[in-house]
Amino acid sequence: MGKERLPRVVIVGGGFAGLNAAQALNGAPADVTLIDRRNFHLFQPLLYQVATAGLSPADIASPLRHVLRKQKNCRVVLAEPIAVDLGKRHVKFEDGVVIEYDWLVLAAGATHSYFGHDEWEKIAPGLKTIEDATEIRTRILLAFESAEYEGSDEARRAALTFAIVGGGATGVELAGSIMEIAAKTVVQDFRNIDTKTTRVILFDGNDRLLTAFSPESSERAKRTLEKMGVEVRLKAFVTNVTRDGIYVGNEFVAARSVLWAAGVRANPIGASLGVPLEKSGQVKVEPDLTVPGQRQVFVVGDMASVVSGGKRVPGVAPAAIQMGTYVGKLIRAELGAATSRSPTDLPSRRPFEYWDKGSLATIGKAKAVAEIKGFKFSGYFAWLIWSVVHITFLISFRNRLIVMFNWAWGWFFFSKSARLITGDSSMRIDEVKANEVVIGREVSNLESPRL
Amino acid sequence: MGKERLPRVVIVGGGFAGLNAAQALNGAPADVTLIDRRNFHLFQPLLYQVATAGLSPADIASPLRHVLRKQKNCRVVLAEPIAVDLGKRHVKFEDGVVIEYDWLVLAAGATHSYFGHDEWEKIAPGLKTIEDATEIRTRILLAFESAEYEGSDEARRAALTFAIVGGGATGVELAGSIMEIAAKTVVQDFRNIDTKTTRVILFDGNDRLLTAFSPESSERAKRTLEKMGVEVRLKAFVTNVTRDGIYVGNEFVAARSVLWAAGVRANPIGASLGVPLEKSGQVKVEPDLTVPGQRQVFVVGDMASVVSGGKRVPGVAPAAIQMGTYVGKLIRAELGAATSRSPTDLPSRRPFEYWDKGSLATIGKAKAVAEIKGFKFSGYFAWLIWSVVHITFLISFRNRLIVMFNWAWGWFFFSKSARLITGDSSMRIDEVKANEVVIGREVSNLESPRL
Repeated sequence: MGKERLPRVVIVGGGFAGLNAAQALNGAPADVTLIDRRNFHLFQPLLYQVATAGLSPADIASPLRHVLRKQKNCRVVLAEPIAVDLGKRHVKFEDGVVIEYDWLVLAAGATHSYFGHDEWEKIAPGLKTIEDATEIRTRILLAFESAEYEGSDEARRAALTFAIVGGGATGVELAGSIMEIAAKTVVQDFRNIDTKTTRVILFDGNDRLLTAFSPESSERAKRTLEKMGVEVRLKAFVTNVTRDGIYVGNEFVAARSVLWAAGVRANPIGASLGVPLEKSGQVKVEPDLTVPGQRQVFVVGDMASVVSGGKRVPGVAPAAIQMGTYVGKLIRAELGAATSRSPTDLPSRRPFEYWDKGSLATIGKAKAVAEIKGFKFSGYFAWLIWSVVHITFLISFRNRLIVMFNWAWGWFFFSKSARLITGDSSMRIDEVKANEVVIGREVSNLESPRL
Repeated sequence: MGKERLPRVVIVGGGFAGLNAAQALNGAPADVTLIDRRNFHLFQPLLYQVATAGLSPADIASPLRHVLRKQKNCRVVLAEPIAVDLGKRHVKFEDGVVIEYDWLVLAAGATHSYFGHDEWEKIAPGLKTIEDATEIRTRILLAFESAEYEGSDEARRAALTFAIVGGGATGVELAGSIMEIAAKTVVQDFRNIDTKTTRVILFDGNDRLLTAFSPESSERAKRTLEKMGVEVRLKAFVTNVTRDGIYVGNEFVAARSVLWAAGVRANPIGASLGVPLEKSGQVKVEPDLTVPGQRQVFVVGDMASVVSGGKRVPGVAPAAIQMGTYVGKLIRAELGAATSRSPTDLPSRRPFEYWDKGSLATIGKAKAVAEIKGFKFSGYFAWLIWSVVHITFLISFRNRLIVMFNWAWGWFFFSKSARLITGDSSMRIDEVKANEVVIGREVSNLESPRL
């Protein structure tokens, strides 16, 4: 063998947790492999702005290879592992290929949960990937397009009704943004419809929005949304979702666009560990974020269920960053040491501690809520804090400039720069219009224009 | 009927020709309907920069409704007509719906032609739409990804070989950009491959590149490309395209990525007119751009074949803009007059005259060729002219700023900001790697890293 083999650190997932773990190992005597099915790190907190046409995908994405280009001990593998074999110490891919590890960091994230009704996903997409975001963008823009040519008032109202399920940060941000698009951005663009009549209804099963915040901030967010025209429906349980609308209890709400921002379901790779999971699939990890009984296997970010300071650590970006950095530094400190000692001789570990920097959620232009160390802000000042924090944490300087520019532009002109209907939209608009001779109506309208 | 019906002007296509025709009718006493299958106007001359990860789709696209929002006599219809019925004076859609016209402007553009081998399209995509551009971007980026994990030198070389068919502006621009990506942008990003060994081969059937230019500029462009490392193969006729590479005459060139930038095929809606067409499907129009025998039906832009000043008007953006404006103004001048007079009494029309502003093609950073009124430029100055012209003609002020910013950034850092592999890339990389245990090799490599 000649030269001694370096310890192999395998990190699954290039989100906040995985990327920060990799970066904490920069220069360490290890072979680090970062595996992700995508070639970029995604700044998920701003994904809703891609879905609502404010930003382009590239503005919030950074190629992982580029971010890690100078970290010579780290290679990037574009692939999606499906299982971990703790006995053989490798991760497996669909084609039977494996990658062996000495240290493993699982950071494959989570997605939304449809509470056992996965069939709703096609009708009511969630917002976790770039493709989700451009799909939702296309749906929002097509909703106005189809409303413009609807034959009946009823169908037009349904086309102009957006139902959003889930009153967390994503749901609140989507609701506010869609209302702004309808009331400001596209208001001059159509000839047959008044986009100001758009209904945006935000449903949540809890008795308040933004449960991560204090009741006071929740109430402020609700009032702000209602002032903008959003209907907020609390203690509302979705019982069915169809192409025509949404059932809340026994009530039917006609809505052509249903967006999903509720529930959490961790990446299924956690299940292959064979250790206790939360109902949502998160791995119940030890205080040092290890899998029980596995000193060199960690689960971090949205995949991990862990308590710090008596409270469950929330599935937010700052927590993922802190977990990733904690694990990266821990591995770095123990590299080489671990294998050469007897189990009783292992270094003791300081448990992971979550440092809660506060909570932020934006609602619209100059509208946000913020809670930082017991202080509660709302309105313009909270929005400013939100903006500065999000710009600061964007991964590349270039993206910071571009996003700032786009925000400044949006501020002055209320315009949305990325209003592209992409994908096979012509087919979909046909589908949307299936039962209406919509363009026929358009022609007959020319006789007596409603201009 | 009460109020007299306004004349209906129907414009098919929201590209340069169609949009300029619509804008020339701003405020005219007419009901203008602009039909496009996409909801945005695309600045096609910069599409190759989306395909090569330099710009985001939204940077070169403007929503048609937004562009025309203040033109109250114009409505936008998101649909794709399939035929024109000259007798019934309407355009038809797939579902049987029709839109009637008094004046018709066909501006539905053209795409590449595979010279009777449409089966090559799947392997060798052309570059005409946003989806084409993001597909090509994904393929270029995946080529490097798969090369990184190829098991054999031969397969690695094929993965790092890009064949581009067609030496017009698009082919030259793609060749130069891909070479820059390989030699500058991603050069630090990979661990197993040296991306500087990338081969870019540009094939053209003619005896020189850029036939719209003088032989002198063609030669300069060729020398510039060759200096960058691009192989230019002239008088090269493609006889077959397969997943493994491209056949030029009897010679086989192994190349996993083949891009198509050759040939012209006009939108097939022209065929429904039942008038003489060019072989490429363009409608042979009268000097006033009308369909023979149809005084109120025009064909403009890339769909039209017309001679001006003894030369065929080229399929370039300035020609499309001029045709669109010419027809828009012509209709505007004759609105109302046309139907009320006898055929012998019709106003005479000044024929369309193409004003050749010159030709521009960019090759790489500070590398371009330009010919303006007999003056020939190349290198940095030509590149400056190219840049200023393209920024100037971008449709919105916002896009101008964003594109300028991205160019400035690219200038200093040679970085490409939109390096996103989107769509179902994980599946495709599996397909690409089908016969190689690539990640397995990666693992075995860890034993003796080639870092």
